[in-house]
Amino acid sequence: MTDQASLRRHDQKSTEILLAVWRVIAERGISGVTIRAVAARAGVSVGRVQHYFATKDELIRASADLMISAAESIHTEATAATGPAAELWDLLTHPIPHASASPTGTAVFYSFVADSVRDPQIAAILASAKSGAAERAAALLAQLDPDLPDPDAAGRELIAVSDGATLGTLIGSLNPDQARAVIGSAISRIIGEDVIGAGSQHLA
Amino acid sequence: MTDQASLRRHDQKSTEILLAVWRVIAERGISGVTIRAVAARAGVSVGRVQHYFATKDELIRASADLMISAAESIHTEATAATGPAAELWDLLTHPIPHASASPTGTAVFYSFVADSVRDPQIAAILASAKSGAAERAAALLAQLDPDLPDPDAAGRELIAVSDGATLGTLIGSLNPDQARAVIGSAISRIIGEDVIGAGSQHLA
Repeated sequence: MTDQASLRRHDQKSTEILLAVWRVIAERGISGVTIRAVAARAGVSVGRVQHYFATKDELIRASADLMISAAESIHTEATAATGPAAELWDLLTHPIPHASASPTGTAVFYSFVADSVRDPQIAAILASAKSGAAERAAALLAQLDPDLPDPDAAGRELIAVSDGATLGTLIGSLNPDQARAVIGSAISRIIGEDVIGAGSQHLA
Repeated sequence: MTDQASLRRHDQKSTEILLAVWRVIAERGISGVTIRAVAARAGVSVGRVQHYFATKDELIRASADLMISAAESIHTEATAATGPAAELWDLLTHPIPHASASPTGTAVFYSFVADSVRDPQIAAILASAKSGAAERAAALLAQLDPDLPDPDAAGRELIAVSDGATLGTLIGSLNPDQARAVIGSAISRIIGEDVIGAGSQHLA
């Protein structure tokens, strides 16, 4: 989803409400999200929140959706003028500085992951984002190495590596350099150092 | 940690209390964990819970510790009589049927992941388990392929793949077969199909 689409769906006031949802999740967990708690955190009335989001579940789903569309917008803008190797690198590593510089955002993401068992719509939002990322990785891999036997499977593999490396960074079993090395090594095993070519400075 | 060590640390009553912690987390999230809520769920008095666990944070940490030591015990017992290829396969794939057959346990694990930002001791418990798993994977890889250039890095890479594949199964972007295929493919890229040899039936 582009920034434009995201903006069409949320005006500034509703976006502020959804940012307050993230803060409530960071402070009290998803089970702490209520219309009242979010209104207080956003500094608006309960009626104002209900004007945009009728139920607590709608609030949580919209806040998960905004987290994913914001991450996608940042990735799209950051890689608009780069080649496929640099875009692949950004796609796989962009969650990692977040885990290190702003672990709260990553922690809120894992709250959504945990909540996906309770709410199939949260699961669907997260699954759609992950499938989209795996498809994008597959398309980039096919550009980088047209002879790659099964780019779809390789794309799924690289997204799994990225997710596992991000989790390791959040809990502290990997430092950010180790996490990037894990991802770089997985890319190299799949398409080979020489295929990366001009993008290799991004894989250092 | 072995079953024996786990049993030394927790007698049956304290284990029942910790299982009640998981249930409370599954139902209300980590922020719903209180001494009172856990006592009610376990069917014991508040004083009985406090006899074992003085604070809410102690309860949460002990329940995370039990989840990890139980998973490690199950892995150790399941692979006591297998070779290194089958042990590696079990190490990397055992969370996946859990995600599919019993998603609640996996969801509780991600609640601990999210909570690790708030509580560095939870992070340390999870990080120690992940680092231990990566070291075990590295040792098994070195057994399977003594010429492997950097088994430690390869072990970290495979644990990341396993964690990412497990997350994908929980949210539904991967089905269990795709998740196992992702892990099998990553193992093959690292040590090669021919090296796996006698263990290859476990990699189907």
